[in-house]
Amino acid sequence: MKMEKEYCIGYKAAGLSSGIKKNGKKDLGIIISESPASVAGVFTTNRVQAAPVVLDKERIKTGVCQAIIVNSGNANCCTGEQGIRDAKAMASSVAKELGISEEMVLVASTGVIGEPLPIRKIEENVPDIAKSAIADGFQDFAEAIMTTDTIPKLIVRQGSIDGKRFNVVGVAKGAGMIHPNMATLLGFICADIKIDSNTLSHALQEANKKSFNRISVDGDTSTNDTLLIMANGLSGAQLKNTEHLKTFQDILDDVMIHLSRMIVKDAEGATKLVEISVKGAKSDADATKIADAIAGSSLVKTALFGEDANWGRILAAAGRAGADLEPDRVEIYFNDALMVKEGMGCGPEAEVHATKVLRESEFSISVHLNLGNGQASVVTCDLSIDYVKINADYRS
Amino acid sequence: MKMEKEYCIGYKAAGLSSGIKKNGKKDLGIIISESPASVAGVFTTNRVQAAPVVLDKERIKTGVCQAIIVNSGNANCCTGEQGIRDAKAMASSVAKELGISEEMVLVASTGVIGEPLPIRKIEENVPDIAKSAIADGFQDFAEAIMTTDTIPKLIVRQGSIDGKRFNVVGVAKGAGMIHPNMATLLGFICADIKIDSNTLSHALQEANKKSFNRISVDGDTSTNDTLLIMANGLSGAQLKNTEHLKTFQDILDDVMIHLSRMIVKDAEGATKLVEISVKGAKSDADATKIADAIAGSSLVKTALFGEDANWGRILAAAGRAGADLEPDRVEIYFNDALMVKEGMGCGPEAEVHATKVLRESEFSISVHLNLGNGQASVVTCDLSIDYVKINADYRS
Repeated sequence: MKMEKEYCIGYKAAGLSSGIKKNGKKDLGIIISESPASVAGVFTTNRVQAAPVVLDKERIKTGVCQAIIVNSGNANCCTGEQGIRDAKAMASSVAKELGISEEMVLVASTGVIGEPLPIRKIEENVPDIAKSAIADGFQDFAEAIMTTDTIPKLIVRQGSIDGKRFNVVGVAKGAGMIHPNMATLLGFICADIKIDSNTLSHALQEANKKSFNRISVDGDTSTNDTLLIMANGLSGAQLKNTEHLKTFQDILDDVMIHLSRMIVKDAEGATKLVEISVKGAKSDADATKIADAIAGSSLVKTALFGEDANWGRILAAAGRAGADLEPDRVEIYFNDALMVKEGMGCGPEAEVHATKVLRESEFSISVHLNLGNGQASVVTCDLSIDYVKINADYRS
Repeated sequence: MKMEKEYCIGYKAAGLSSGIKKNGKKDLGIIISESPASVAGVFTTNRVQAAPVVLDKERIKTGVCQAIIVNSGNANCCTGEQGIRDAKAMASSVAKELGISEEMVLVASTGVIGEPLPIRKIEENVPDIAKSAIADGFQDFAEAIMTTDTIPKLIVRQGSIDGKRFNVVGVAKGAGMIHPNMATLLGFICADIKIDSNTLSHALQEANKKSFNRISVDGDTSTNDTLLIMANGLSGAQLKNTEHLKTFQDILDDVMIHLSRMIVKDAEGATKLVEISVKGAKSDADATKIADAIAGSSLVKTALFGEDANWGRILAAAGRAGADLEPDRVEIYFNDALMVKEGMGCGPEAEVHATKVLRESEFSISVHLNLGNGQASVVTCDLSIDYVKINADYRS
């Protein structure tokens, strides 16, 4: 008999093809907890919100959940009342199969906006997927929620509290429509620690600030962004004090930062992962504005793709961010190489060094404003020919 | 003898190659007025401002000017004190050649940021260009200020006041780093009407709101944006009352709207000119936020390039604009074809019609929010594979 890897105690998962995606790839995923779990979530701030987002935001108020059903290939967004009925039907079919209340089931969808959800295909496959869920089904689940992603995004981490081990498994998808105003993708995290839903929600938001809210691919924000965390307590590890919380927070941060970087690495058409770091701003808010402006600049991103150390575009993007900046105090580093000093280029030797940095697949660009102590960073990628190709052809 | 076309009475212009551009194309341009002219300008709001911008903003305070010297191929930006000295030297060499005060000469530069201006090449060519300036030299001037532009942008319009004809000639360049926060390019307008510099400045700003401030190519804003207007009064037409002003304003609006649309049509890699129009917003400010978000969305722009009627991306961009929006009230039109009603797609027939519209080279997308009377529009273009190619290779 095959040994099952148990990612996280008391959780089963699965992924299969229900026929929503035309290419026959997996498009339906499920996560089931043995017992009711504490739950928390972060959702898109877009005014246009997909039906599953509307449903989950309501259901999550109870603080408990036992299963999550997810489809890719169709966002169930801009689908009106029918969309809400379909999202509820997705949850309801899972609830019936598992013999639990339908309020205990959350739903997520991702894919094309504005087409009716093929709910029949989902309902027909729910019995199968519920039965096929296994402890080491997270890889299949990770594959089932992919859209333009080229690799499944899955990570497991362990920690211990008072000698009791606990597990945190995180799965995410996302390759486009990613910007640091919110969760900006689908993300699902399972923990087997015991924790109340308020504390869990706070921990999720803290980790989110450092991870999914600090990545940018293309400046667009999705209508379906949903980040859910469940904690079922089945490891026996119980969160009792602030030291325990710190232990858990560190693990959760690590899981979410790792997932968020995987998303940027796998971003549509991306060839580079670049951390934009701004230091010495008048305030953290100013630093954030500048980091976001640089990370969001098409001209910076095309130069990164072209491996061109065009620091003028970085400075120009910083200058239009609406934050305090004195050009003649600015320094720019590519990794540790000083490229710009007192707002001017450091000459051909620095340029040669910078061009070498740009050929790497991961590097950092640091902008020092020398005005104060404000700082911020954001992880982004280049803008490539393939990004345009992928997004020009997305629905065809 | 060749008949010279007189674009605008009392103005001469020229353009030639001074060797700044490596490919030997024209890179130095001049406009000279026979007599001192009223002058007004609009400049970049970027915190990083090129040396010629710094110089012009100071000089323009006098309200008079007699010549403008412009180079392309080098932005003279992030060039420190030497940059300011070089900008002054450019003006000074023109002043010496024309026998006028150097304060009467304005300067503009466009091209690569962060490299020292090859001032010797400019100074060596100033005597030639000043001598070669002729009444119908505006076409050469328009060519000399191009960077990634593929066509020179020039337009002439006539009006009349109290039976006296007057001329307005406009020249612009710009194909990237274009966003509606400001002038966002180089633009030079000559008029032979008599008008004081304060009124001229007001008229320029009014026209700018309707033209250069309402176009977007890539969301980046340049460090060199400069829009200058001269009026020398040599036609004999004199602006004396509000009716005259309206006549002049209409002509000026027409010139600037025409130039701004030429810029979008010639935008880097663009294959489509698209007017995004938002109606029924709670306020004009809300409408502007939404129009700008749609026009700036990489996902919308790649879908336009792919001729894909992916209205979900339009609605998603509108939803993240930070403006009031009720999804189930939204209507979206492609030209006159209703695509989205009550926040939902109008079905396959509408999609077929919309796809036909998308194959045109110019069309409009109208978003009706049905919340109030606020409206705004912005002219933008698609995001193509060529945009990425052009900007990945710009400096090489």
